[in-house]
Amino acid sequence: MTIFQRRDISLKELVNGDQLSIAVFEFQGKKPGPHVHIQASVHGAEVQGNLVIYELMQFFSRHEFAGKITFIPCSNPMGINSKSGTSTLGRFNTVTGDNWNRVFEDVAFDYDDFVSRHLSLPWKELKDSFKKEFFQTINSRLKTLEERGLSENKKWALTLQKEASLADIVLDLHTGPISTSYLYTAEEFFSSSLDLNFPHHIIIPAEFEGAMDEATFMPWIKLKKALAKAQRSMPSDTEVYTLELGSEETINSDRAKRYSLSLLHYLKKRGVVTSELPPLDVITKRYKTKLAHYRCYHAPHGGLVEYLKAPGEVVLEGEAMASFFNFKTITALQGVSEAQKIFKAPKDALIINRCPSSNVTQGMELFFVMEEFELI
Amino acid sequence: MTIFQRRDISLKELVNGDQLSIAVFEFQGKKPGPHVHIQASVHGAEVQGNLVIYELMQFFSRHEFAGKITFIPCSNPMGINSKSGTSTLGRFNTVTGDNWNRVFEDVAFDYDDFVSRHLSLPWKELKDSFKKEFFQTINSRLKTLEERGLSENKKWALTLQKEASLADIVLDLHTGPISTSYLYTAEEFFSSSLDLNFPHHIIIPAEFEGAMDEATFMPWIKLKKALAKAQRSMPSDTEVYTLELGSEETINSDRAKRYSLSLLHYLKKRGVVTSELPPLDVITKRYKTKLAHYRCYHAPHGGLVEYLKAPGEVVLEGEAMASFFNFKTITALQGVSEAQKIFKAPKDALIINRCPSSNVTQGMELFFVMEEFELI
Amino acid sequence: MTIFQRRDISLKELVNGDQLSIAVFEFQGKKPGPHVHIQASVHGAEVQGNLVIYELMQFFSRHEFAGKITFIPCSNPMGINSKSGTSTLGRFNTVTGDNWNRVFEDVAFDYDDFVSRHLSLPWKELKDSFKKEFFQTINSRLKTLEERGLSENKKWALTLQKEASLADIVLDLHTGPISTSYLYTAEEFFSSSLDLNFPHHIIIPAEFEGAMDEATFMPWIKLKKALAKAQRSMPSDTEVYTLELGSEETINSDRAKRYSLSLLHYLKKRGVVTSELPPLDVITKRYKTKLAHYRCYHAPHGGLVEYLKAPGEVVLEGEAMASFFNFKTITALQGVSEAQKIFKAPKDALIINRCPSSNVTQGMELFFVMEEFELI
Amino acid sequence: MTIFQRRDISLKELVNGDQLSIAVFEFQGKKPGPHVHIQASVHGAEVQGNLVIYELMQFFSRHEFAGKITFIPCSNPMGINSKSGTSTLGRFNTVTGDNWNRVFEDVAFDYDDFVSRHLSLPWKELKDSFKKEFFQTINSRLKTLEERGLSENKKWALTLQKEASLADIVLDLHTGPISTSYLYTAEEFFSSSLDLNFPHHIIIPAEFEGAMDEATFMPWIKLKKALAKAQRSMPSDTEVYTLELGSEETINSDRAKRYSLSLLHYLKKRGVVTSELPPLDVITKRYKTKLAHYRCYHAPHGGLVEYLKAPGEVVLEGEAMASFFNFKTITALQGVSEAQKIFKAPKDALIINRCPSSNVTQGMELFFVMEEFELI
Repeated sequence: MTIFQRRDISLKELVNGDQLSIAVFEFQGKKPGPHVHIQASVHGAEVQGNLVIYELMQFFSRHEFAGKITFIPCSNPMGINSKSGTSTLGRFNTVTGDNWNRVFEDVAFDYDDFVSRHLSLPWKELKDSFKKEFFQTINSRLKTLEERGLSENKKWALTLQKEASLADIVLDLHTGPISTSYLYTAEEFFSSSLDLNFPHHIIIPAEFEGAMDEATFMPWIKLKKALAKAQRSMPSDTEVYTLELGSEETINSDRAKRYSLSLLHYLKKRGVVTSELPPLDVITKRYKTKLAHYRCYHAPHGGLVEYLKAPGEVVLEGEAMASFFNFKTITALQGVSEAQKIFKAPKDALIINRCPSSNVTQGMELFFVMEEFELI
Repeated sequence: MTIFQRRDISLKELVNGDQLSIAVFEFQGKKPGPHVHIQASVHGAEVQGNLVIYELMQFFSRHEFAGKITFIPCSNPMGINSKSGTSTLGRFNTVTGDNWNRVFEDVAFDYDDFVSRHLSLPWKELKDSFKKEFFQTINSRLKTLEERGLSENKKWALTLQKEASLADIVLDLHTGPISTSYLYTAEEFFSSSLDLNFPHHIIIPAEFEGAMDEATFMPWIKLKKALAKAQRSMPSDTEVYTLELGSEETINSDRAKRYSLSLLHYLKKRGVVTSELPPLDVITKRYKTKLAHYRCYHAPHGGLVEYLKAPGEVVLEGEAMASFFNFKTITALQGVSEAQKIFKAPKDALIINRCPSSNVTQGMELFFVMEEFELI
Repeated sequence: MTIFQRRDISLKELVNGDQLSIAVFEFQGKKPGPHVHIQASVHGAEVQGNLVIYELMQFFSRHEFAGKITFIPCSNPMGINSKSGTSTLGRFNTVTGDNWNRVFEDVAFDYDDFVSRHLSLPWKELKDSFKKEFFQTINSRLKTLEERGLSENKKWALTLQKEASLADIVLDLHTGPISTSYLYTAEEFFSSSLDLNFPHHIIIPAEFEGAMDEATFMPWIKLKKALAKAQRSMPSDTEVYTLELGSEETINSDRAKRYSLSLLHYLKKRGVVTSELPPLDVITKRYKTKLAHYRCYHAPHGGLVEYLKAPGEVVLEGEAMASFFNFKTITALQGVSEAQKIFKAPKDALIINRCPSSNVTQGMELFFVMEEFELI
Repeated sequence: MTIFQRRDISLKELVNGDQLSIAVFEFQGKKPGPHVHIQASVHGAEVQGNLVIYELMQFFSRHEFAGKITFIPCSNPMGINSKSGTSTLGRFNTVTGDNWNRVFEDVAFDYDDFVSRHLSLPWKELKDSFKKEFFQTINSRLKTLEERGLSENKKWALTLQKEASLADIVLDLHTGPISTSYLYTAEEFFSSSLDLNFPHHIIIPAEFEGAMDEATFMPWIKLKKALAKAQRSMPSDTEVYTLELGSEETINSDRAKRYSLSLLHYLKKRGVVTSELPPLDVITKRYKTKLAHYRCYHAPHGGLVEYLKAPGEVVLEGEAMASFFNFKTITALQGVSEAQKIFKAPKDALIINRCPSSNVTQGMELFFVMEEFELI
C-alpha cells in the first residue's frame, strides 16, 4: 500500500500574525525506486502545473508504484497570492522585486572532501550519503542565516532546495506568459529529456544563475566532476528539468491530463510507474536550441500591440510579427495610417512565448524566440 | 473636404515634469449633421476600442460625411500606462483607488431656468444653446475647483465631459475582462440602441452613479423633463451608450473591422455616413436584461479556478460553471479528489464576462451574468 | 473576575488555501455597564490604534471594570498585509480599488415596525431588543448575499458591522497620512466627543457615505427618529467616533500610552472604568469645523515637494505651504530658480494632515485642512 | 562666462505615445578643470539629491568655476513616477522587478589593446582618448542591442553610463529608507572620500554587481591594471561615489544646503570651485566598515514593529532594537503582554538605516547596520 504523508511548512508570518505555508505531499510506493520531486508555481501566475500535480496525485493514489514521490503544489504561497487588480503579480517578490526563480542558492559544499570520504562505497550508498550530507548542509545554512534573521526569499528558496535535495528526479513546473510548451534542460540531461515528450528544448549551460533547476542539478554535476578527479564515473540516474506548460494565469484539465500522461510515460521509463498506461500521443516534431540563442525581442516603441504571430510559429527574417498603434503620430487627415508601425522579425526564429498584454511600453519584452533552432 | 484638427490636452504633470496628455481628433464633414463623440479606454486595460477608432478614422479620412466626429483614443493616459508586471492595472487610479468610470460628475445646472429663457426657440437652436451653456457650466466648474487645486480624477473626468457635452451621439468604448460583446443603454435609448447590432443589452435606469455615459445622458434626460414641465416635448436625437467590445488587454484588427462596420451602419441610419457601405453581418439573436438582473457571482472559496462555461453561454440553475482546486483540503490518500469543488449556477443565467485569472481569492468577482434575460 | 474570550473569524481564503482572519477579544467585566467596541486598522497602514488597543487590553486584564469591551486589533487583515515595496497599500482593496472605509452598508431595517412592536418597553430592554434584531438583520443580509457568493468587501464590512451592532460605544481607530490628532463626530455626539480629549473635531452630517462610523451610528439616529414619531425621546447613551491618532505606517508606545489614558478617562466618565486613573494631560486648545469646511488642497503641479507647514499649524491666506521643484522648467543659466514654485494657502486654514511623500504628481491630495475652524 | 546647455533625452515611449525623458544640464566653466557628473534618484523614492543638485546649480549659475559639471536630476523618470498609493515604488522596475541600481553593465572593452595603442601619450591625453573610446564603445553596444529591441532597463542604464563615462568625478546621489548619511567608496578611493565630509563609509571591493558606481569606476580600475602590466602607473584623479543623503520620500532644503556645502568644499579641493565658500561644519566622528560587515537584520517574525533604536545609533549585542506586536499570540487574560516580542541586537552594531514601515512581514529587511565598524 502506498503510504501518504502531508507535512505543512510555515513560510511567512504576516503582519497580523496569520501564516502562509506550503503543504508537502509524500507518496511512498511499496517497492523501492527513484525519489521524484515535483513542484509547481514558483512563479505565482504559472498555475497549470498544479493541475498536472492534481492529475498525478489522483493516479498515484489509485495505482501502486515503485519509489517515492514528493508533490509541492502551490509551492510559492507569496507569489500565488500576489493579486494586483485581477491579475497575479507573481513573477517577483513585491517588496524586494527579486524574481522568485533567481533567489535560489549555490550552497557551498566540499565535494572533494566528500568524495575522499566515500569513494569506496557502491554508487547507491554513496548517492544516499551525498543526499543526506547535502540536506544537512542546507539545514546548517538555514541555521547560520537565522542569526541575523532569515530573509523571506532565502527561507523559501532553501526550504524548497532542501526538499529537492533528497530526490533523484526533480521537475519544476512553470509556464510562459502566452506560450507554447517547452523545457529547460542542462546539456548533461538533454538526451534523457527527450523522454518527456516536449516539443521545444532549451539547453542551458551547467552554470548557476539563481534558478531552482540550477540550484538542484549543480550539486550532481559538481559531484560528478569530483568523482572524475578521483577516477570514478558517475551513473546518469539523476535528472532535473524546468517544464513550461503553456500560458500563465489559466488552468485547463484537458491539457493537464495530456501533460500528466507524458509525465507518467516518462516515469514508467524510469521505473516509477509500474502499471499499464494509455498510449501516448507522441510529439514528432521537436526543436532545440542553446540558451544563447533563446532571445528576447524588446518593444522598439510604446503603443498598443496586435500580435500577428503566435507561440509555436516560425517567422522568417523581415516577416511581420506585430503591429504597434500610436495615435500621437497622426498629424493630418492623410496620415491616419501612420499610427500603425509593423514590427518585423530581425532573424529567422521560432516563437516560444510573447507578452500577454497589448498595452506595451517601449523596451518591454515582446517575444521570446529560438533563433538557430534545430529539429531534433 | 473633411476638415481635420488635432488638439492635445495636457492632463497630468508627472513628478519629473513630464506630461501625460490626450489627443482629440476632430473630423468636420462638408455637410451639416449630428456631432458624434467616440472615445476609448476610460479603463486602461480596455483597449480594443482604440482599434475600432483607428478603423473609423481611416474610413472618415477617405469618405465624405455629414456632421462632425470627435475621436479620443487612449482617453485615459493614466490608466493605459498603469503597468503592474506585464498586466495593466487600469481599472482604478493607483494612488486613490477610484474606479475611473465612477469619478464623473453630475454637474449642477438650472434646467428650469434654461427652459424658461429658451422655450420659444426651435429645437435645433434650443439644443445648440443648451450645449453651449452646459459646456460653459463645466468650464466654470473646472475654474472653481482649481481654487484649491484640481484633483487628477476631476480634471480628467470634467475634461472628457466637456468634450462630450457638445455632441449629439456619445459612444464610450469599453471591454469586459474575458467577455462577450454587450452594451449599456438607458431605457430612454433602448429601441435606438438596436441599430448598433450588439448581441447583449443591459438597460440602466436614468440615475447617476458616476459613469461617463450617465454624466453625459443625464443632462439630456433632465432637459427633457424640464421641457415637459413647460409642456414641450423633446425630440429623440441624442444618444449615449457604453459599448463593451469583448475582452481586455488585447486588440484584434478583424474584430475591430467588424465592430467599426456595425458602427458605420448605425451612423448611416443617423445620417452621418453618406456613402455606400459593405453589407452588415446582422446579429439575429439578441438579449436584454435590466441592470438589476445583471448580477455578479463572487467566488465562494479561494483556489485555482478552471472556468467551465464561457461568456456568451447560457447556464441552467445547478449546472457546473467552474471548478475550484485547493490542495489544503487533502488529508488522506483517498481524499485527493476533495481538492476539487464545483461551483454551480445559482440561477438560470446568460454569462456576460468572467474573471481573467485562474488565481482567485475568496470573494473575488467570478462571473457577471444576465439573470431574467429575454430575447429581444 | 473579568471573563476573557477570543473568537477567530476567517475572512478570506487565499488562492493556495491559507486563510486571513481576525481575532475578536472580548473582556466581560464583573459588573453591568456599557458595551464598548474598539477596533483598529480598517485602513491597513493606519496601525497606531493597535498599540492603543494593546495598552487598553493590558489595563483591562489587570483592573476590574463594568460592562463589556470588544477589541478587534488588525481588523482588516487584507489591508494590513498589502505590502507594495516596503510601504503598505492599505487604503483600498488592491483587486477592486474600493476604499476600505467606504464599503460598509446602510443595512435596511424597518424602524417604524420595530418601534410599534417595542414602544412600551423600558429603554434598556428596548435597546437590547433593537441590538438583537439589528444583529439578526445583518446576519440575514449575509445569508442572502451568500446565494451569489459574498464579495470580499461585503463579507468583511458586514462582519465588523455585526460585531459593532451590539455595542453602545464604538471607537474606530484610524490615523491620517502625516497627521495631527483629530476625530470625526456626528453633530449628535459632538458635545459628548469633548470627553475624548482630542484637539481637532470634524463634525459630520447624519448621512451615509459608506464609512464604518456612519454604518454604526445611522441605525441609532434612525431609531431615534422613529421613536420621536411615536412621541418618545431616546436617551443619549450610544456614541460612535472615528479617531485619527496621528500618522500612518508607524507605531509609538509613548503616544499610545497617552491616547489610551485619554480613552480610559473617557470610559471612566461612561462608567466602564471603575478604578483610579493617573491624571490626564488635558488638551486646552480645541478646534472644530464642519465636514463641508474640511477641505483638500490638491497639487496644482507635478514635482518634488518640500512641505513648509506641518499638521497642527495654522496658515493664513497667501502664506507659503509648500515648494514644488520641477527641473524641466529651467531653460537658461539665469533661470535655475524657476524650478521652484511656491504653493500658497488659498484660505486661512488649520492644517490637519498632508501627503506623506515628496514625490507628487499633479492633482494628488497635498493637504487636508480645516477652513472656517473655530476654537471650541 | 559659464556656458549652459540643456539636452533632453527620451528614455521611454508610453502606451499612449507620451514620452518619459531626462534633462541633462551641462555647465561649462571658463577655465579648464575636471569634469564632474552628478546625478540623483536612480531609485525613484530617493529624492533628496535633487534638492542638492538644485542648490549646486544655483551656486554654479552665479559663480565662475573651472572644468565642467553635468547635472542629471530626476535621472530615472520611470522610478520617480512609480506611485503606488501615495508612496513611490521606485526601487525596482514595476514590470520586471529589476532593482534599478543592479541593471548597469560591465561594458566589454579591450584595455590591453587600448594601452598598447596609447602608452606613449601623456596622462591627460591618454585619459581623454580613453574616455572617448569608452564612450564610443557604449554607443556601439547600444546600437548592437537595438537589433532585437533595447530593453527599458538597458537603454536607461547605458544612457547614464555613457554620460558618466566622460567625467573624472561621478557622484550618484541616493538615500536610504529611514537612514543616516553614508557613502559607498571603492577601497581605491577611500582616502579621497574623506574630503566629502560624510559620517559613515562603506568600503566596497572592486567588483561588479550591477550598480552605477561600479559600472563607472570599474573601467578606471581595469585601465589602471592594464597600465600597470605595461609598467605605467596611473594618477588618482578619477573618483566615483554613491552618496546616501538620509531618508527617502522626502526633501528638505536645510539639509540640502548642508550637503551642497560639503560637496562645494570637496569640489574646491579638486579645483572645480574657485571662489570663496562659507566655512564647513566638519564632521569629526567618522566610521568605516567593509561591505562584508554591512549587514542586514531580517524580521524574525511578522508583526507591527516599534523601532527602539534610530539610524546613527550604536547598539550592543543583546540590546533591544525593536518591539514586535502580534495579537494572535494572546490566548488568555494573563497573556496579553505575550503579544510583544523584543528583537535584540545579534552583534554590536552601528545602525545605518531601517525599514520605513511598522507593518512588517517575516523576513523583511528590518535594519542595515555596520558590524565591525571602526572610527576613522
